[in-house]
Amino acid sequence: MSGTVYPKTESDRMNIRKVAIVGASGYSGEELVRLLLSHPHAELTAVTSRQYAGQPLAAIFPKFANHPRARALRFSEPKAEWLAKEAQVVFLALPHGVAAEFAVPLLELGCQVIDLSADFRVRSAAVYKEFYGHDHPAPGLLARAVYGLPEIYRAQVKTASLVASPGCYPTSILLPLIPLLNAGLIRPEGMIADSLSGVSGAGRKAELDYLFVECNESARPYGVPKHRHLSEIEQELSLAAGANVVLQFTPHLIPVNRGILTTLYATPSNPGAPAEFGERVASCYRAAYGQEPFVRLLEGKALPDTKNVVGTNVIEIAWRLDPRTGRLLVMSAEDNLVKGASGQAVQSMNLMCGFPETAGLL
Amino acid sequence: MSGTVYPKTESDRMNIRKVAIVGASGYSGEELVRLLLSHPHAELTAVTSRQYAGQPLAAIFPKFANHPRARALRFSEPKAEWLAKEAQVVFLALPHGVAAEFAVPLLELGCQVIDLSADFRVRSAAVYKEFYGHDHPAPGLLARAVYGLPEIYRAQVKTASLVASPGCYPTSILLPLIPLLNAGLIRPEGMIADSLSGVSGAGRKAELDYLFVECNESARPYGVPKHRHLSEIEQELSLAAGANVVLQFTPHLIPVNRGILTTLYATPSNPGAPAEFGERVASCYRAAYGQEPFVRLLEGKALPDTKNVVGTNVIEIAWRLDPRTGRLLVMSAEDNLVKGASGQAVQSMNLMCGFPETAGLL
Amino acid sequence: MSGTVYPKTESDRMNIRKVAIVGASGYSGEELVRLLLSHPHAELTAVTSRQYAGQPLAAIFPKFANHPRARALRFSEPKAEWLAKEAQVVFLALPHGVAAEFAVPLLELGCQVIDLSADFRVRSAAVYKEFYGHDHPAPGLLARAVYGLPEIYRAQVKTASLVASPGCYPTSILLPLIPLLNAGLIRPEGMIADSLSGVSGAGRKAELDYLFVECNESARPYGVPKHRHLSEIEQELSLAAGANVVLQFTPHLIPVNRGILTTLYATPSNPGAPAEFGERVASCYRAAYGQEPFVRLLEGKALPDTKNVVGTNVIEIAWRLDPRTGRLLVMSAEDNLVKGASGQAVQSMNLMCGFPETAGLL
Amino acid sequence: MSGTVYPKTESDRMNIRKVAIVGASGYSGEELVRLLLSHPHAELTAVTSRQYAGQPLAAIFPKFANHPRARALRFSEPKAEWLAKEAQVVFLALPHGVAAEFAVPLLELGCQVIDLSADFRVRSAAVYKEFYGHDHPAPGLLARAVYGLPEIYRAQVKTASLVASPGCYPTSILLPLIPLLNAGLIRPEGMIADSLSGVSGAGRKAELDYLFVECNESARPYGVPKHRHLSEIEQELSLAAGANVVLQFTPHLIPVNRGILTTLYATPSNPGAPAEFGERVASCYRAAYGQEPFVRLLEGKALPDTKNVVGTNVIEIAWRLDPRTGRLLVMSAEDNLVKGASGQAVQSMNLMCGFPETAGLL
Repeated sequence: MSGTVYPKTESDRMNIRKVAIVGASGYSGEELVRLLLSHPHAELTAVTSRQYAGQPLAAIFPKFANHPRARALRFSEPKAEWLAKEAQVVFLALPHGVAAEFAVPLLELGCQVIDLSADFRVRSAAVYKEFYGHDHPAPGLLARAVYGLPEIYRAQVKTASLVASPGCYPTSILLPLIPLLNAGLIRPEGMIADSLSGVSGAGRKAELDYLFVECNESARPYGVPKHRHLSEIEQELSLAAGANVVLQFTPHLIPVNRGILTTLYATPSNPGAPAEFGERVASCYRAAYGQEPFVRLLEGKALPDTKNVVGTNVIEIAWRLDPRTGRLLVMSAEDNLVKGASGQAVQSMNLMCGFPETAGLL
Repeated sequence: MSGTVYPKTESDRMNIRKVAIVGASGYSGEELVRLLLSHPHAELTAVTSRQYAGQPLAAIFPKFANHPRARALRFSEPKAEWLAKEAQVVFLALPHGVAAEFAVPLLELGCQVIDLSADFRVRSAAVYKEFYGHDHPAPGLLARAVYGLPEIYRAQVKTASLVASPGCYPTSILLPLIPLLNAGLIRPEGMIADSLSGVSGAGRKAELDYLFVECNESARPYGVPKHRHLSEIEQELSLAAGANVVLQFTPHLIPVNRGILTTLYATPSNPGAPAEFGERVASCYRAAYGQEPFVRLLEGKALPDTKNVVGTNVIEIAWRLDPRTGRLLVMSAEDNLVKGASGQAVQSMNLMCGFPETAGLL
Repeated sequence: MSGTVYPKTESDRMNIRKVAIVGASGYSGEELVRLLLSHPHAELTAVTSRQYAGQPLAAIFPKFANHPRARALRFSEPKAEWLAKEAQVVFLALPHGVAAEFAVPLLELGCQVIDLSADFRVRSAAVYKEFYGHDHPAPGLLARAVYGLPEIYRAQVKTASLVASPGCYPTSILLPLIPLLNAGLIRPEGMIADSLSGVSGAGRKAELDYLFVECNESARPYGVPKHRHLSEIEQELSLAAGANVVLQFTPHLIPVNRGILTTLYATPSNPGAPAEFGERVASCYRAAYGQEPFVRLLEGKALPDTKNVVGTNVIEIAWRLDPRTGRLLVMSAEDNLVKGASGQAVQSMNLMCGFPETAGLL
Repeated sequence: MSGTVYPKTESDRMNIRKVAIVGASGYSGEELVRLLLSHPHAELTAVTSRQYAGQPLAAIFPKFANHPRARALRFSEPKAEWLAKEAQVVFLALPHGVAAEFAVPLLELGCQVIDLSADFRVRSAAVYKEFYGHDHPAPGLLARAVYGLPEIYRAQVKTASLVASPGCYPTSILLPLIPLLNAGLIRPEGMIADSLSGVSGAGRKAELDYLFVECNESARPYGVPKHRHLSEIEQELSLAAGANVVLQFTPHLIPVNRGILTTLYATPSNPGAPAEFGERVASCYRAAYGQEPFVRLLEGKALPDTKNVVGTNVIEIAWRLDPRTGRLLVMSAEDNLVKGASGQAVQSMNLMCGFPETAGLL
């Protein structure tokens, strides 16, 4: 990454892609709107919402009312043919199962599709059915989809027409673990991921459990022991390890709007002396992420803190070898709605469209 | 405002001013860093902090670590001569009394100075002494300073060398009231301002009163009945009214990081029929702010909400004539650190430097 | 109040009344359960909830599961005849309109009824209809109901069979203003009440507006300018003033679970010298509340803070004469669910049953 | 536990012990004040604070101002001889190192001492020095101290003169794990404790890290990998396991005032069929805690939530065998200031004094 911020030149500015967001009224959709409105290479031409169709974008999200690009936007009914006319790139911020219904026609009509749902994250329709409880709605597309973790699949994302943008928890777990598994530094068995998530992760749904009074001054685990995100997490960890990985994963809900803090526990393959192992881990991370614009490796005394990443596309990663237990701790912090959802999706768009990877994300 | 976002052209990009922040380690300073790092016409060349001198910016504010422009920045000792070499525009985010000490030499050395402290907000050294408890440190500069409320003093800000950027509470009170007083729609006497502020308004100071446990699940008035901000508020209201205004002002602390919500009570000068008076107020606001990029007039059923403005330079304004009491209520919401401090200061910089007023603020 | 805590003697303990709560699954109902479970003179025999009928109390409110008295309790369908057999005192924690349906038969069956809804708070069926939008469901009972503000109507509450327990906002406004109006210290016209409420005030309802993410980091006015609570507030203020009072009232929602902070603005009738007026106000409050167990007069530098009263039946009151404006500011803090609802209802029960007024409330 | 609440009889009431709190101005001290003011068998006669000596208790903690028993209390300088005259039972809510200085003379003067610091929690002066960084100030007392976890050491607490009340994290970890280790159901090696704590756990100290703005909207680990509480945790786990236990422990700070949520990971010794192992765990917990008044075993679908225990002396415990990993998850929730500190200390006092164990705690 050079020290400059895009757009650098007039010709950069001219390179504009029309984009649409299907399902723009949830929290991920709202964050996509925010990012795309200020993106130097994107023109947001359509936002859809069945619930709010016909209403101005700013009636639902007043905070966009003063943005010059947002004034003309109204929520539309989601219709694939119309979308394909309005946009070259379409983001799907829809529930699983529903997203695939739009991906199929949009791809046929020549759009680039970035799906923020779980529909194309797992490569196996059988695994999808096991975790999501229904047949995969478009199994023929699974082979075509690229898992949109740019730090791992950058080359593939660049040429993809269908990107399955990773889940919020998976991002916070995979980015810290994959380089260590790739390098054989940790053993593939026995890993644990303990995650804390802000309430926006539960979506913009009117349910008692997510009322202010029920969440404020509360901390609680949920969805143990078999969270749906395990399907994509274990798929990717297994690929990195070259072995079947089964992960222990415990999500917790804490009273913040945004942010995921994940603490990972792993066993060194061959620890050797603690200081020397620590250096091998540091080298591994530097090699993997030293040049990555959105990964912050904390090598000093600092530990990750969600407040340092909220509103940004950055993931913070720190690690400690515990000499008493011999275990390696890795901790990460991200914004569940940015690096864990919409920011990462825009990062993929940048790659797919040949824009600078950081465009609109700094 | 056109529908485009700056920089539009290559030549826009070339128009870069070097800027420095003195006192960059508080919350307003931090927010200035954020805004200036992504400003298309600013190059942040120096940040000072006596407390952190010598340390990298990112050691104190990790969230800037991944910004390409921030990597090379370290906190320096604040020294006027050195600052004048490093920067053409200098922001002072210092306590009152201290700011003036830097403004004097920096102006002599040819810098444009934007002061976020209270030092140059009041025109009278006597009023300053009454409210701040010490002699004014540079009374000779008072006549030169422009009160940096661009919606009111745009022309003067454009040619100013010294801008006194308004306080957070004053901004939330003055922007709603000045047009009504200018138009003679409300009476200058008997007005009340009741404000709620987030805790960042208290600054980044280690005091018991601002500990998490002392503020969370708490709501409390403070500083009644004579808050220091009244000096600048009453000065500007009096100018708008053409009469001496004495305001009742009650600030409260509520458990949010950012945001000020102000509820104002005023008496119509000549109300007439409620519907007709409401229309006169609406017309007055439309005339004053209809084209303003950072004022959002809520004309429908919506009421201001700090969450709609946090992180933006926008102030929301809504109003209701209460037919039962005959009083006019005006409500505003702003981010105390953006429109109430650093964003507004950048807005002034844009004007002083001939940049588009919204540059770096959308 | 003596320095001892009830029950003092064995005979106190023997004096037990059976009580029931109709509508026990909302926040006020939950708080009533908490207070009555530990009340030395109450035996909670029945809790009703249409939604949860048949379920154990502790399935919905796990925090009561370890209380020995709570183990046997299950939610029942609300049926007046059955309730009258189970309980001598019945609390109604129901929506307005519905409460009256239960009050009528329960009173006929000989129960003492304490209604936390708005159904019996206003003396005029016409005012009820104006503010609540439907005919009063039991106008014949209005004359019989006593407004359950013990500090004002202690004698009447003691002999009442039907107590209309005041609303949360009204309590925070009436207790500070009534003594001043009674004493003629402030003028009845032009008063303003600006209130901040925790989110539990909105009830335990699954609505988007009250989701954690929508309330956290948010502050907003609502329901201006004609909130329903004005009906009872103005009734009681008018009685105290001996004149028709029209109040300006602005409620705001802030991100705390519990607590109401109210700031009141009034004009002294005949202020005289500020210090002397201040002393007259102080004397007035001392005479009215100096011996009240649940009113805390702050006479020094302290100002009210909701965190000092949350979980208690206390209201804090402080006041300042502003010499600049000549106005009197009075500020109060209470727990909206205790002094503003369930605690005050228990205080009334104590009076109605001849128990010590503080029983179960210290 | 019977279904009645103490005091039952007049003679219960007469059984009153005079108690003092040394170091009453911190959060644990404040909570002790709250509990002891309403305790049926305690008369709080002295509260000390070097910082606030001479000031009324209610000047620092306004919320106690209306409690009849609190009115006469002022903070005193802590002096052992005077304390021994004023009280039979003395609670020490002091920093480690300082507590021992008071424990020695108070015990000599015949007081019962309940120490909430770490000074007497570990049996070995060498371990103390390793974790606390200085020589133990009173090693001769270590053998006399009883670790005040009543569910585990009830008989010893009853006859103790010096109780070392456990730390907040240790309580949340030990109560779930000890029965399983005692029964040999889990293996002593490889256990992990991942804990989330409210900010009151950091104490009432004016430090930047604990400011509202620094903690709100933040989640972060800290103190990894060797937290001081590990000394007492591993001591007690090792005793339960009959083997040396080394625990992985990661504390996190989350933005709530109170509460600890701990998630524990353990390996079954001999799992057998999952359903059958689950039943063995359930039986083990029922045998250990089925009759305990302050342990809530969640056997259905519910999981622990700090909001269900805040303000109470209860710890919630739930467990799941993960059939995918073979690991046992145990989750607990407690109020760090009640069951994790002051409530548990009062529970010990009840046992030491022959009061009903739940007196003042329901």
